[in-house]
Amino acid sequence: MRTSGMRDYLDGPHKAARDVVRAELVAHAGPAGLAEHMSRDEYRDKVLELLLVAAADGLPARGYPKEYGGADDLGGFIAGFETLAFGDLSLMVKAGVQFGLFAGAILHLGTERHHERYLADAVSGRLLGCFAMTETGHGSNVQALGTTATYDPETDEFVVHTPTPAARKDYIGNAARHGRMAAVFAQLVVGAESHGVHCLLVPIRDDDGAALPGVTLTDCGPKLGLNGVDNGRIVFDQVRVPRDALLDRYAQVDANGNYQSSIENPDRRFFTMLGTLVQGRVSVGGAAINASKVALTIAIRYAARRRQFGAPGSAEEALLLDYRMHQRRLLPLLARTYALHFAQAELVDEFVRVFNAGRTTADARGRSGDDGGRAGGDGGGTGRDGGRTGGDGGEHDRRALEAQAAGTKALGTWHATETIQVCREACGGAGYLAENRLARLKADTDVFTTFEGDNTVLLQLVAKGLLTDYRRSFGELDPLGTARFVAAQAVEIAVEKAALRPLIERLRDVVPNRSDTSDPDAGLRDDAYHSGLLRYREEHMLSGVARRLKAGIDAGDDAFDVFNRCQDHVIAAGRAHVDRVVLEAFQSAVRDAPEEVQPWLHDLYDLHALTTIEAERAWYLEHGRLSPGRSKAITALVNELCAIVRPVAVDLVDAFGVPGSAVDVPMVVPSQHE
Amino acid sequence: MRTSGMRDYLDGPHKAARDVVRAELVAHAGPAGLAEHMSRDEYRDKVLELLLVAAADGLPARGYPKEYGGADDLGGFIAGFETLAFGDLSLMVKAGVQFGLFAGAILHLGTERHHERYLADAVSGRLLGCFAMTETGHGSNVQALGTTATYDPETDEFVVHTPTPAARKDYIGNAARHGRMAAVFAQLVVGAESHGVHCLLVPIRDDDGAALPGVTLTDCGPKLGLNGVDNGRIVFDQVRVPRDALLDRYAQVDANGNYQSSIENPDRRFFTMLGTLVQGRVSVGGAAINASKVALTIAIRYAARRRQFGAPGSAEEALLLDYRMHQRRLLPLLARTYALHFAQAELVDEFVRVFNAGRTTADARGRSGDDGGRAGGDGGGTGRDGGRTGGDGGEHDRRALEAQAAGTKALGTWHATETIQVCREACGGAGYLAENRLARLKADTDVFTTFEGDNTVLLQLVAKGLLTDYRRSFGELDPLGTARFVAAQAVEIAVEKAALRPLIERLRDVVPNRSDTSDPDAGLRDDAYHSGLLRYREEHMLSGVARRLKAGIDAGDDAFDVFNRCQDHVIAAGRAHVDRVVLEAFQSAVRDAPEEVQPWLHDLYDLHALTTIEAERAWYLEHGRLSPGRSKAITALVNELCAIVRPVAVDLVDAFGVPGSAVDVPMVVPSQHE
Repeated sequence: MRTSGMRDYLDGPHKAARDVVRAELVAHAGPAGLAEHMSRDEYRDKVLELLLVAAADGLPARGYPKEYGGADDLGGFIAGFETLAFGDLSLMVKAGVQFGLFAGAILHLGTERHHERYLADAVSGRLLGCFAMTETGHGSNVQALGTTATYDPETDEFVVHTPTPAARKDYIGNAARHGRMAAVFAQLVVGAESHGVHCLLVPIRDDDGAALPGVTLTDCGPKLGLNGVDNGRIVFDQVRVPRDALLDRYAQVDANGNYQSSIENPDRRFFTMLGTLVQGRVSVGGAAINASKVALTIAIRYAARRRQFGAPGSAEEALLLDYRMHQRRLLPLLARTYALHFAQAELVDEFVRVFNAGRTTADARGRSGDDGGRAGGDGGGTGRDGGRTGGDGGEHDRRALEAQAAGTKALGTWHATETIQVCREACGGAGYLAENRLARLKADTDVFTTFEGDNTVLLQLVAKGLLTDYRRSFGELDPLGTARFVAAQAVEIAVEKAALRPLIERLRDVVPNRSDTSDPDAGLRDDAYHSGLLRYREEHMLSGVARRLKAGIDAGDDAFDVFNRCQDHVIAAGRAHVDRVVLEAFQSAVRDAPEEVQPWLHDLYDLHALTTIEAERAWYLEHGRLSPGRSKAITALVNELCAIVRPVAVDLVDAFGVPGSAVDVPMVVPSQHE
Repeated sequence: MRTSGMRDYLDGPHKAARDVVRAELVAHAGPAGLAEHMSRDEYRDKVLELLLVAAADGLPARGYPKEYGGADDLGGFIAGFETLAFGDLSLMVKAGVQFGLFAGAILHLGTERHHERYLADAVSGRLLGCFAMTETGHGSNVQALGTTATYDPETDEFVVHTPTPAARKDYIGNAARHGRMAAVFAQLVVGAESHGVHCLLVPIRDDDGAALPGVTLTDCGPKLGLNGVDNGRIVFDQVRVPRDALLDRYAQVDANGNYQSSIENPDRRFFTMLGTLVQGRVSVGGAAINASKVALTIAIRYAARRRQFGAPGSAEEALLLDYRMHQRRLLPLLARTYALHFAQAELVDEFVRVFNAGRTTADARGRSGDDGGRAGGDGGGTGRDGGRTGGDGGEHDRRALEAQAAGTKALGTWHATETIQVCREACGGAGYLAENRLARLKADTDVFTTFEGDNTVLLQLVAKGLLTDYRRSFGELDPLGTARFVAAQAVEIAVEKAALRPLIERLRDVVPNRSDTSDPDAGLRDDAYHSGLLRYREEHMLSGVARRLKAGIDAGDDAFDVFNRCQDHVIAAGRAHVDRVVLEAFQSAVRDAPEEVQPWLHDLYDLHALTTIEAERAWYLEHGRLSPGRSKAITALVNELCAIVRPVAVDLVDAFGVPGSAVDVPMVVPSQHE
């Protein structure tokens, strides 16, 4: 296999952006182990230094509008950001806080005056900022945040306040040491009325780094990993900011104290604002997948040179990678990393399409002073685009994009946790030493499953999106709302099911049932068979959940209990959907691949498809979609495919293009031990 | 439920030993977070200080003979050691190195002169030592170590030497900073002949802590966790030690340079020596299970007070522990922790029985000067006890004990890795902060799956023990030997299978096949049904492996390939066996429990049994032992059992008796956030 061909194909259209970051990691990041050889404060300051280098090299600017020094290349920006995950992950996360979340909140939630005043400084790193959303008492349930921003008509200011200990802002990156300003999410109170969560820019430190009056900043202290990021806590005691500190793209308060928004429904307004922040999830998923590549590169190279045991009497012991169990542990994870890479590339393409469409629409609608906020207020084209594909950034497209981002983030980050763990164990004691980097990767990535949305909550979001019609249920994320909605939709679901029947019939044709055991191997490497099985499972689980919700509501049970009884089923349905999306992304990637790499990709694809089916074979057996014989044949074929992939396993990790500085650790560099 | 009754039952016969350590952790260990708030050297020195406190309090002495200041209470020693895992895990591991491995090597591999000279000092911590077995090039395959100890008849000394970089001693606890002496495993060369791996005591540092001539000591540097343990590397350059540095219980070299051993077969000799070190595995498994208790105590208490989302309109959000998905994540792990606790207690009882029997036999045979080594040389009673139960520490009992220890260690440590990971994720961002302790637990325990025997290698050992008759195959751990042996035994296996048939028939009666779907719930909570399923699986997998090995050899395939093709099957068979042993240990514990706790234990047992079966339901479906309906019924019942256990979940973790100092972390202590 020509590694370079595979690498080019993986790098795709954003190869240049990735290569810039690769070169930067080699040039500036220095040897691995910043975390281990510095005090926490030194490490944090070193990461800030690297952040400013990245800013000077134009990494963040790539993703921002040309008028603020940017390049309007969102796809390249995300690709570059993901590539940072090959290096020190504290740098990646701090860059995410500064250039993704903080600057992103200004861009997406603010209007021209905020852009003019802050954007160039935020993107260059001259203005270091926080994204102050999460509180001690509320992480996942953002709508229930306790911080308040109360409009004071006397002074034309907002008063930002932390009313209870639980409303303290917590885990906030840049808060403990470097941040000067925070994008603060708070309940906006105007007159006697609360309008729900909005975002305001609140200065928190003076030029010398001292906390401003009324602002209490504390340090979250040491963490399992990411200690180069200065996470902290913020408590506000009646802190006053001018009225225009409100990021007012979606809602405005005028000088007379009148609140107005183009989005009437408060839930819908809230989710629209949150939706603009989808970039964070897109980026974290991609970073997690890239961290998996680093771990696999190290562990597979190690397994391809480390010997232990073997046939006695033979001159040499056997290579770890020649053991079936070792192949079984590592190679399906390699295949799934490829699958997720292609799913992520699809997601980024869709993200760029939807956002650019939205931006174009907003631009076209005019950008005139005070009205700039409202012009973009509906996210570009509410209700104008009813189609399911090819929209221009309309609401439906954005909901679909959010679900896709949530699902890919959940699977990508869980994959990273699992993969890095397996790689650590596959390298034994050597994997536990900091010098071999797996330990650091493990510690640093562990929180990915939790931040930017807890994975289990995200999979519920995915399932909820599938269960209900996007437009109608929009905003009702809560379990009760969902359950009621689904009950109300029961008739509609029945109709849809009837419409679906031909599809299910087709699937049944593709998917033999368990009585068909004549040739258990037939068609096991057929793409249509794989997607047939995964689609069948997805549809079956979704309709099963819908049925259970409806039956519970019909029986008069408490709606929360009804939902809660199905919660594991709901989450499994969400996961089944994402599994199918990832599988089909890999199928497309194989189809589109250049001839020289296609055969290898196809083997890897089959390995991924069959391990995915194998992992859920109990379900297929329970539902009569696999015969026992066929189920066993799948396991045998997975073993066979491991052996087929093994000779090119090192080439396949080389194709990830992780820079040598990130993976040339002592245990894989020959000179050290031989 | 009365928590104290359950706690007393869990603490069992060694309650006093556990309570001493609990009190010690409260009195001396101070607040959590040693690792985070000290430099590495300070932390290491602090851990040494705590080690000496533990020694002064008599913790290690408990396990050593009365004549060297001990209490001859092995069971209490191990129970106390396990309890150390409630506190700082670096202390636990350093205590394991010093009091378990180093002092244990002197006790078990040395003879009276070594005991007299070193044991009291080793047990008191006055003589700090290393257990220098693992090398850079060889971890699992100890028989292939490269270090040599060559007898020089001119000076009546051994010359200890590191011939290649790969033979460097690596990951050695106490080597980087505190150790003064090392128990070094090396190929013993006498005359021109190598006699395999033996152990010698080699001084490595002088009284001032400087490396002795010819000894190069380096630091392994930072690790993912356990940074309070000073792991290091040792290179020997022709280091001379007197002849009596050889720990000569099982083999001696006399002044004329004659090597002799009571165990003729070098493999058997090697495994006998290694077998005496089983205590390390017993202890690590127990420590891992206790670390899981700490994590579950924190995560379940948190889930019982943390609220998020819930039915809108209700006054309060819902508790995390009331969500089905949260119950599903945590409660089966709680049940498995109980199961493993009881399996571990059984293992410790068996360990004490076998070792005390061995010691008594050895004592009875006399202990006279130079012959002291040989007297105990056969480990007490080789061949004298042919029975399968009730032995006096004979070889068969010891092999069985080693397999049981290997299996419990593998499952216990994997369980810890999984449980702590799930607990961390279940606590979200809070779980990632060092102050809440899960992060440290995760990092510190991660290497448990690797050290004291890599878990996958250990499960192969278990399976191998089951596949072959202990006495005959003894010593032939290598794949080739195993495969050949099994082939040779094929006739015997066939005979055994015939003898087994009535058992299998009985199992079939207990285990309905998939055509019996009249009442899918019938008997799902029946103990005999559970063990019937697990026994069926174990027997079926073992005979399947044996058949495949024989078929491969019969076909003339390369023996290593034959073994390797089945490796995943072999390991799964080993695991199936241990799963069954753990299940039945839990059954016994429920039967023997006092009335007041029995009902709760029984629910927990059912939850464990059914999640174990659920996890392998694909296999049971494939083999016609579960019908699809019954398989689904099991999943439904697991959900139901989670709801049944939920109201007492906090009591069930309280019963672990983890001292408050170890689990009163900010996120679960009310005053902090409310």
